[in-house]
Order: sequence, then structure tokens, then C-alpha cells
Amino acid sequence: MSELDGIIRDLVIANRILAHEGVLDAYGHVSVRHPSHPDRYLLSRSRSPELVGPHDILEFSLEGDALTRKHDTPYTERHIHGAVYESRADIHAVVHSHAPDVLPFGIVKTPLRPVVHVASAMGGKVPVWDIRERFGDTDLLVSTIEQGRDLARGLGEGYVVLMRGHGFSAAGRTLREVVKTSVYVRLNARVLMDALRLGGEVQYLSQGEIDIRLALDAKSARFDRAWEYWSARAGMRASE
Amino acid sequence: MSELDGIIRDLVIANRILAHEGVLDAYGHVSVRHPSHPDRYLLSRSRSPELVGPHDILEFSLEGDALTRKHDTPYTERHIHGAVYESRADIHAVVHSHAPDVLPFGIVKTPLRPVVHVASAMGGKVPVWDIRERFGDTDLLVSTIEQGRDLARGLGEGYVVLMRGHGFSAAGRTLREVVKTSVYVRLNARVLMDALRLGGEVQYLSQGEIDIRLALDAKSARFDRAWEYWSARAGMRASE
Amino acid sequence: MSELDGIIRDLVIANRILAHEGVLDAYGHVSVRHPSHPDRYLLSRSRSPELVGPHDILEFSLEGDALTRKHDTPYTERHIHGAVYESRADIHAVVHSHAPDVLPFGIVKTPLRPVVHVASAMGGKVPVWDIRERFGDTDLLVSTIEQGRDLARGLGEGYVVLMRGHGFSAAGRTLREVVKTSVYVRLNARVLMDALRLGGEVQYLSQGEIDIRLALDAKSARFDRAWEYWSARAGMRASE
Amino acid sequence: MSELDGIIRDLVIANRILAHEGVLDAYGHVSVRHPSHPDRYLLSRSRSPELVGPHDILEFSLEGDALTRKHDTPYTERHIHGAVYESRADIHAVVHSHAPDVLPFGIVKTPLRPVVHVASAMGGKVPVWDIRERFGDTDLLVSTIEQGRDLARGLGEGYVVLMRGHGFSAAGRTLREVVKTSVYVRLNARVLMDALRLGGEVQYLSQGEIDIRLALDAKSARFDRAWEYWSARAGMRASE
Repeated sequence: MSELDGIIRDLVIANRILAHEGVLDAYGHVSVRHPSHPDRYLLSRSRSPELVGPHDILEFSLEGDALTRKHDTPYTERHIHGAVYESRADIHAVVHSHAPDVLPFGIVKTPLRPVVHVASAMGGKVPVWDIRERFGDTDLLVSTIEQGRDLARGLGEGYVVLMRGHGFSAAGRTLREVVKTSVYVRLNARVLMDALRLGGEVQYLSQGEIDIRLALDAKSARFDRAWEYWSARAGMRASE
Repeated sequence: MSELDGIIRDLVIANRILAHEGVLDAYGHVSVRHPSHPDRYLLSRSRSPELVGPHDILEFSLEGDALTRKHDTPYTERHIHGAVYESRADIHAVVHSHAPDVLPFGIVKTPLRPVVHVASAMGGKVPVWDIRERFGDTDLLVSTIEQGRDLARGLGEGYVVLMRGHGFSAAGRTLREVVKTSVYVRLNARVLMDALRLGGEVQYLSQGEIDIRLALDAKSARFDRAWEYWSARAGMRASE
Repeated sequence: MSELDGIIRDLVIANRILAHEGVLDAYGHVSVRHPSHPDRYLLSRSRSPELVGPHDILEFSLEGDALTRKHDTPYTERHIHGAVYESRADIHAVVHSHAPDVLPFGIVKTPLRPVVHVASAMGGKVPVWDIRERFGDTDLLVSTIEQGRDLARGLGEGYVVLMRGHGFSAAGRTLREVVKTSVYVRLNARVLMDALRLGGEVQYLSQGEIDIRLALDAKSARFDRAWEYWSARAGMRASE
Repeated sequence: MSELDGIIRDLVIANRILAHEGVLDAYGHVSVRHPSHPDRYLLSRSRSPELVGPHDILEFSLEGDALTRKHDTPYTERHIHGAVYESRADIHAVVHSHAPDVLPFGIVKTPLRPVVHVASAMGGKVPVWDIRERFGDTDLLVSTIEQGRDLARGLGEGYVVLMRGHGFSAAGRTLREVVKTSVYVRLNARVLMDALRLGGEVQYLSQGEIDIRLALDAKSARFDRAWEYWSARAGMRASE
């Protein structure tokens, strides 16, 4: 199997995992930067992640033009992916999700912050990006590269950004990292909501703990144990 | 396959999708207006949606009289469907649901309003209809065409109406639209409850955003991506 | 099939339904009064409801003595069933459950009251029985017929009684009715918790509505639509 | 089957049960003390519990050195197990979990206390251990035997200890007991959160009730009914 074929296979598994773990539903998507052309990325044609197979994966320029199979319908919101790859050389994979447990933090003032060690990729506090601030009333979709670039500015140097009334986007140094980040952003949001409702002060992770965990994640970027497990749950055989 | 057979097939898929996505359970139903006789609608005999097959679909007059297979037991609450079709020429499909996540908004003062872009069909604020206002103490079922007409007045020009102590009804310009609306009303209710509990001000969709989304939905009335996904999850092959 | 065999078959289906719908888990049980000997009841040997088959069903006297296959281990808490049958000639089936959604109402002052039409069997307000009031510190199990009789007094003339720190018991005029009651007590508890958290006044069913629904349930005691659906979900073929 | 083979088989079943019941996910683990060498314990190599089979089980010294198949990767956090076995001769099985329903009680002041009879193994009030108190900023993992010993001190004479921002650990007098404790700690946490949100005073189990239940559990240490049920749900045939 060529390197590209292996990456496409991993991207298909990532689609299935994120669907099975409740991060992606009918909508939402996951992409990976092209291994030999850093100015391209791989992303499914317009199809729900649970159903994506190798033949659905297309190549796009960072501006969102399909470079292969140009007659297939692309995701309207592919610009989320292109704009993040454009602005962040360290990022090699992107997820866009509407997970219900995360959505509340995009529409209230209470910030989403990490309380569980596995969710440290969120950083100290997840920024909220609101398309309305710069583009006024829209359908809330990131439909142009300019909107994508504005979102990428909202993401800044972090790995997760909330999108008001819409969902969140996550960026990873590897495909497996962004899958892990997305799964645990959701878990952390649920735990934090439950904790806040108990009342009183909540103990967030300290900045020191977050930094140590981010460094740890960079070293263990394959997350073999979780990847094998999530693949099996999604009915896929984990890639070696 | 005749046009009617195709519509019946889609209606069966809609039954299965709504059961699988937690919108309908033992009770609740979904109908579609007859394609060539606008004064008739198609609806299952009295059977739980998850089990409905093509042979369960009956034809009804808007007054709720079965026009085919008159010996089958109909749903008591078929009048919800007839009355909505009677009052709204733009509506071609109706859902009646008891989804638990939506029920709380029918029994408290807090209004159900859209906070997620996919739920814009709810309009600015979902009206609450209470059968008791006009009919006093009842079994809460919409058992007569008069009760159905009162409910249709409660729905007004919108697409969703809450029913106090009972559930909600949704109306769509197409069958696929009403399925999407019903799935996302439920998600929006869950997200809004979670957001309100975090305290502080909640950012609802603006009226401009709602209008733009409703116009978008009218154009993309097939919702192919979601329909293919939901059909597959419900164990059905999506119709073309 | 003899009448008794038919009833045993229904009781097995009821076990499977209540397990599948989240009313019963490892523990909990469901019984039915003997059709020709009103001073006996049918109940599984000590086995989790999801696994109960026809050969697990034993006959008991109202005092809790096994009348068949006396060497099988019975449920410790069979006295819940015997005591309810003893005190209420109108009751023909009993469920004992630890459903997590219902448990909170047994340990706080907020009463469990019906807010959804399908849950009217709860009556105006579900009583809470606390074994500690009469028996002091125990293992909380209803292990003697005296404890069962005290619980039956707590149930009174109603159909549902909460048990502090333990669960609830439900009584039905038919087996199918007690299954329906148990499923919807759980749903009503979830909806009411969600509604109360939204704040402000909650609209409960009126006493008139409750009375009308109870009369309706008595007439439609077979609940064919729901029974067929729940049976299918639990992997069983519904009895005719 | 030798005694050791039987114990390994039970440990595999325990892994599958805890995964299926939502106590363990990609991470977390369960161990058992060696039946004939009390200074050793049995624990899977680094693998998600849902996927663990008999050939994944390794033997460790209490200090965490693998005594068999030394080339396999062990869990980093195996020291939780060794330190608890070292400090508590009465303990024969240990679970380490990140169950989301339990996590909130590790990051707020509200104590986790038992409100349901099946959760009495928690004792009167579950202690919270914070790795930061003694070790400052870390990755929050229990990576050394010293950290494990500090956690074991946090556990004290009880059976459950919360770990701030991380999860919980549970200890059992038998493997089946620790499985039951872990399943019901989670249920109790969910019920208590729901009850606290209803407001007003919550009725916890009394110390007398807790003591009676703990004595009862010691006698019925096989928990045959629950073990058969959980095994079946996890797709395993229960051990005799």
C-alpha cells in the first residue's frame, strides 16, 4: 500500500470513528493534509462520515478547488479545512463537528475549559467564533475561503474553536490526535456542564498540567490503544 | 415504480428514520399529502413507526375517513394531519411526536427557540397549543377534526407547534424537510436546555439568520446527504 | 397453547421488554397473578429479566412460598408482589424497578407527578415509601411479607409507589398495563426533571385529565400497538 | 481448567463487562490479585478493556515489574493496582475508570455519597485524591509506585476514591464485587446529580444501612444474578 493509500485508509477510519463516537452525524467532516503536497488536503465528497469509503476521498487545493473527480459535489464548508491548513503549518488534520454536548458553550458566556486530563488539547479556554461579527446575518455556514480565514484567526494558536450556533472545529498535529481531541472535547463538555450544575467552584486543569499533557500528546501521537479500540467499535480493523 | 409507489416507499423510510432517531416511539406518526389528490393524505394504519411497511399505508380524506382498506384500524390522532393539510396548501408532510427532549418546553413558560442553524424551521419561537383551552379536560388526544383544526390554528404560519403534556407536531414543505425539522427540533431542545442551565444570556439565532436558513432549506429540499445517512442507520436503502 | 402457557409466554415477553426499555437491569422483576388461582402469582426464579425464559417461571403463594420447583432460588423481594396481590383484588400484575431516572424522586421532597398524558397511571402524585420508617436500618430490601404489606399500604389505591433509596413498584390491572405504566413512569420522570430545571411553574395534568386517561387505559387494556413495538425491539414476536 | 486459568477467564469477562456497561472506555483497566502469590497481580497489557483476551493478561510484581512476557507494553498506570494491593491485604481486585458521570464529583466541593442501596460500597462519603497536592503539576497519570502509594493512602480503608480531573479507582474483596461497585458508583453519581438539581434536602443512606449492605455484599460475593446478566450483555458466557 502506498503512503497515500495508507493515509486515505486512516482518513476513512477516522470518519467512521467520529461518526460512531457521536462527534459527527449527518453533517460534519474530517480532513488530512496531503502527505507530499502540503498545499493540498484530502476530504470526502459531500457524504455523511459514517458512510464514507476510500472512493469518496477527493483532493483539494487550500482555496477549496477539487483537484480530482471535479464533478463530485464537495462539502460547502470545506473552506474550514483549507483556511486552517493555510494559516497553521503545524496542523495536519482538521475536524468540523456539531456535537450536541459542545454546542451550549458556543451560545452562552460560560467558557469551555478543560477539567479532564484527556481534554487538554482545548488549551486554557476555548475561543468562540461568531460568523455574525464580521459577516452579519448568514446561513451560518463557512461557505467562502474568506469566512474560513476568519475562523482560522478565531482558532489562533490553539487546537479547538467553538462556532456560535453551529458547532466546533478542531485541529491536530496528526489525524489521530485530532480524533482524540474531538472525542474528548465532547466528553469534557458533558463533564463540565454536570460539574457546573452541582454549584460552587470547579477545579480546572492548571496551565502547567495542560502544557505537560500537550507535550505528552506530541510524543504519543499514534494513540495506538485508543485507535485500536475506536476502530473496532466502528467495525473497522485498525491500521497498523 | 409509479410516482405513488415511490412516495409510499419514502414514507416507509421516513417512519423508520424517525423511529431510529428517537423522534417517534410506540406512538407518533408521519404522513404525506397525496401527490395527485391534494385533498387526500397517506398515513400508516395504527402501527408503531419502526414496524411500518408499504402495505400498512392507507389513504385518508382530509376529514380523516379511510378511502382504502376501510377495515384497518386507523390512528386516533390522524386528524392532526388532515387539519394541517386543510389549512396550509404549502404543507406536504406532517409529523406528530412525543420526543422526551421536546416535551419540557410544552409544560413550562420558557419558550423553545432556535439556537442551532439546522433547527431554523422552528421559526423565532415555537407556539404552545393546549387542548384544554378550548376543549377542557380530555384524554389529550386530537381525536376529532375540530380538535385538529384548533391545533392547526395553533401552528399558524409556522412549521412546529408544541402540544402541552403531549408532544409536538411539525409540518414540512416536503417529506424530507419535515423529517429534518423533527430530528433537529429534538437536538435544539436538548442543546437549549443545556445552555439555559449554564445560566446567563443565551444567543438565539437572529430573525435574519432564520429567514436565510428557511430559504436555503426550500432550495435544498432533498437533503440527500442526511437522507442517505439516516436511511442507512435505520437499515433502509435510501431512495434515489 | 393453554391459557396458562399463554400467560407465561406474555410474562417472558414482559421481562424482555422491561429490560430492553431500561426499566429493569440486573435486578428488578415482573409478575402476574395466576389466571385460575387468584391466591397465587407467577414470577421468575432469581434471574435477570433480560435472560428470563418460560422455564424460569415459578408459582408462588401470596406469602411467597414456591409451589413449584421448590429447589430454585427465588427473588428475595418476591414479597412485594404477594403483598400487593393480597391487598388489591383489582391488580393482576406487578413490576419492581430501579430505573435511574425515577430514583431521584424517592430521595428528595419534590413529588413525582404526571406531566405527559401517557403517564397518567401515576395518579395525581406518587407516594414515597421509606422502609426505615417502620423497620429502621435495613439492607433496604423487601425481604419479608410484613415489609411487603407495609409497602402495599404505601401504594394505597394507586398504581405506582416510590421506594426511598431503592426504586419503585408499579401495579397494573393487566400485565400489559403495568408494562406501559412502568415505561412511561420513567419517561415522565425524565421530562419532569428537565422541566423543573427550566424554572418557573410546571403544568401538570389536571385531575380530570388523569381520570379520563385511567378510564381510557382500562378500555384499551391490550395496548396492541405498543406491545407489538416493544416486543419487536426486545427481539420477541408479540403474542396474539 | 486450572484455578489460574479460571481467574484469567473471569478477569477477561470483567474487562468486557466494564467496557460494555460504560465504566471503562479506551482507557482504564481492571486487575485481580494472584490467587497463590499475594505479592503479584494479573492485569492486561496496554489494551482497551473491550478488546482484552486471555493472552493479553500479564503478571506483575506489586512494584509494577512484569514477570511474564516482559516485552509487552504495560499500562503506565499499573501502579494504582500494585499500591492498593500492597496497602490492603483484604483487597483482591482493583478498577481504574474515567466514567463521565463520576468525574464531576472529583472537581467540585459537593461530595459523592450513596443514595441507592446497591452503591453502599462507596461508604459514607467518597474521598477525593488530587495528585497535585503532593506532586505538583503533572500529566495527572499515576506513573510511579510512589504516586500509587499516595493514591492508596487517599483510598484509606474504603472501597472507592475519586481522582481530581482524572476519574476514580475502586477496590473489591473479590473481582465480582469490584465490578458491581464500579457499575453502581456510576449509577449512584447520575442519580445524585439529578436529585441535587431538584433542590432541597437529599436523603442519603444512613451509616447503619451502609454497614448492613457491606456485610450483605461480603456474604453474597458471587453476585451470580448480575454476573450472568452483565456477561450476557457483553457477549460472554458467564463463568460457573
